[in-house]
Amino acid sequence: MPGTQFDVVAIGNAIVDIIGRCDDSFLARHGAPKGHMRLVDTATINAIYQDMGPGIEISGGSAANTVAGVASLGGRSAFIGKVAEDEFGRIFRHDITAAGVSFKTPAVVDASRSTSRSLILVTPDGQRTMNTFLGISTDLDQGEVDPEVIQKSKVVYLEGYLFDRDEAKAAFRQALDIANKAGRRVALTLSDSFCVDRHRSEFLALIRAGIGVLFANESEILSLYETTSFDEAVTRVARDTRLAVLTRSEKGSVVVSEGEVIEIAVQPVAKVVDTTGAGDLYAAGFLFGLARDLDLEAAGQLGSFAAAEIIGQMGARPEVKLAHLARMRGFLA
Amino acid sequence: MPGTQFDVVAIGNAIVDIIGRCDDSFLARHGAPKGHMRLVDTATINAIYQDMGPGIEISGGSAANTVAGVASLGGRSAFIGKVAEDEFGRIFRHDITAAGVSFKTPAVVDASRSTSRSLILVTPDGQRTMNTFLGISTDLDQGEVDPEVIQKSKVVYLEGYLFDRDEAKAAFRQALDIANKAGRRVALTLSDSFCVDRHRSEFLALIRAGIGVLFANESEILSLYETTSFDEAVTRVARDTRLAVLTRSEKGSVVVSEGEVIEIAVQPVAKVVDTTGAGDLYAAGFLFGLARDLDLEAAGQLGSFAAAEIIGQMGARPEVKLAHLARMRGFLA
Repeated sequence: MPGTQFDVVAIGNAIVDIIGRCDDSFLARHGAPKGHMRLVDTATINAIYQDMGPGIEISGGSAANTVAGVASLGGRSAFIGKVAEDEFGRIFRHDITAAGVSFKTPAVVDASRSTSRSLILVTPDGQRTMNTFLGISTDLDQGEVDPEVIQKSKVVYLEGYLFDRDEAKAAFRQALDIANKAGRRVALTLSDSFCVDRHRSEFLALIRAGIGVLFANESEILSLYETTSFDEAVTRVARDTRLAVLTRSEKGSVVVSEGEVIEIAVQPVAKVVDTTGAGDLYAAGFLFGLARDLDLEAAGQLGSFAAAEIIGQMGARPEVKLAHLARMRGFLA
Repeated sequence: MPGTQFDVVAIGNAIVDIIGRCDDSFLARHGAPKGHMRLVDTATINAIYQDMGPGIEISGGSAANTVAGVASLGGRSAFIGKVAEDEFGRIFRHDITAAGVSFKTPAVVDASRSTSRSLILVTPDGQRTMNTFLGISTDLDQGEVDPEVIQKSKVVYLEGYLFDRDEAKAAFRQALDIANKAGRRVALTLSDSFCVDRHRSEFLALIRAGIGVLFANESEILSLYETTSFDEAVTRVARDTRLAVLTRSEKGSVVVSEGEVIEIAVQPVAKVVDTTGAGDLYAAGFLFGLARDLDLEAAGQLGSFAAAEIIGQMGARPEVKLAHLARMRGFLA
């Protein structure tokens, strides 16, 4: 096994979020399923943007948020993803690099294409509903997957959303193949229950074929197994993968490993501002814990801590360095 | 006098802020004068951006923030300013329109020019230091000043920063002329003490010639009269204009009118997050108060309230509608 350079490398959509506040009737009017991500075309994203209130722009992207979280916790991380040579692409590159993440994927120079963006609508209850326009980010192909980075990372983290385009799927499989050959652990997040609906059989095949760590929230795992029983989903995921991490919002999370089920309590949140990034940051804490050889319970607690922190602010990139806070609270040595 | 359509119309730089956090040594390293705005060229803004941490992008611009504040307080307002036909220009237009401000100045289509932006560095004490790259915003010329909007606004508010380019100065004088002929009140903000240094004699001539309301913070008014005594500055400004509003950060503010000096206390702030926009929102409250015929003390208190609100959040555009809050707290009927 070659030397380790990174705790975690992630492959995912490179997205800039435009976050605004709205009420439930706004979501209904635009047919946006509350709490979910949906893919929208140019006309739809323009229509929603025109109708919504003032926004703030913050770099996002699920797996990108996760590796930014790993860096914030004091880890070494890298990101592979695609931006265009435009203003949003420059913002994305600056922010992830400034967060301490290695990001070397070159930008695409093509004036007719743009960097991906997501309109995130936050309702008064703090829930976020995402309307994503996939621009250039799914143009990621096999050539972009740097074998050396994969080989030198303890964990390779794959974003389920990438399954929404065939080109990206090839990059995904390429990374999986390199990681497996290098004996590296591969983690996958199911991303969203609608995303699971779109790609259920492929996800199941992939999980059974060699995903070492599966992340899913409750609605995603229920969707994967087409059941309404969380217990049944736990039983079935235990058969399909060696390690599954299931998050359940305010009910905490569950780590399912080799027949064992470990329950992790939620960390208290002073005020829910915006739930964007809760799952992404949970994954950051858990993966960083794994990479640094914490036991599963401690890794889950670190994930739970990072998730609670991100819920108390706008956006999915930590405003403050989490490493110091995690040590102060006893989640990291 | 034609019918009134707007409480306040502002003419100013159309800017998108990129806000990030840094410590004092970062400012020193980049030669950025703490608490001030300085104009920087492309090379400097790029160097600072590359060196700074992750940012968030929020529409800004001093006078633009003020009219967004007026709209948030329930007033009718308009903005005249220049953006390029680029991503930041679209963000600026969306945000100010979505805030409820009428903004009709067409964008400039010229791929070699870009919308103005300001890197705002917030230190742990909540102070903001601005590094502004003036792109297209100072290309505002006389043709952009819509006489009808000026004639139909109770107050015309001019941003001192516009004096940094001659073309904009002409637009400024044009607006002043139309407003005076229409019998409208004209307000001016000195914007920044360094800006006053650059244009002292012109500002003084303008104030004496017909500015009805002058806004300045303590360092700006001291700079204008080249004195270290606030009392002396008050005495002198009382001779030069009929109404001056002087803000003094945590010491409150002073309204100087026809020989009378009214002291306004600060409103309590739970936590200083980012002082960006404090002066802009004070002006919003005061001008809206004037437009709605509040007495000077009540207008000052409304300004003080709006300033306190904006200090408790990131960025200079109110995240929540201020009208309801202002009524609840008794600042508006």
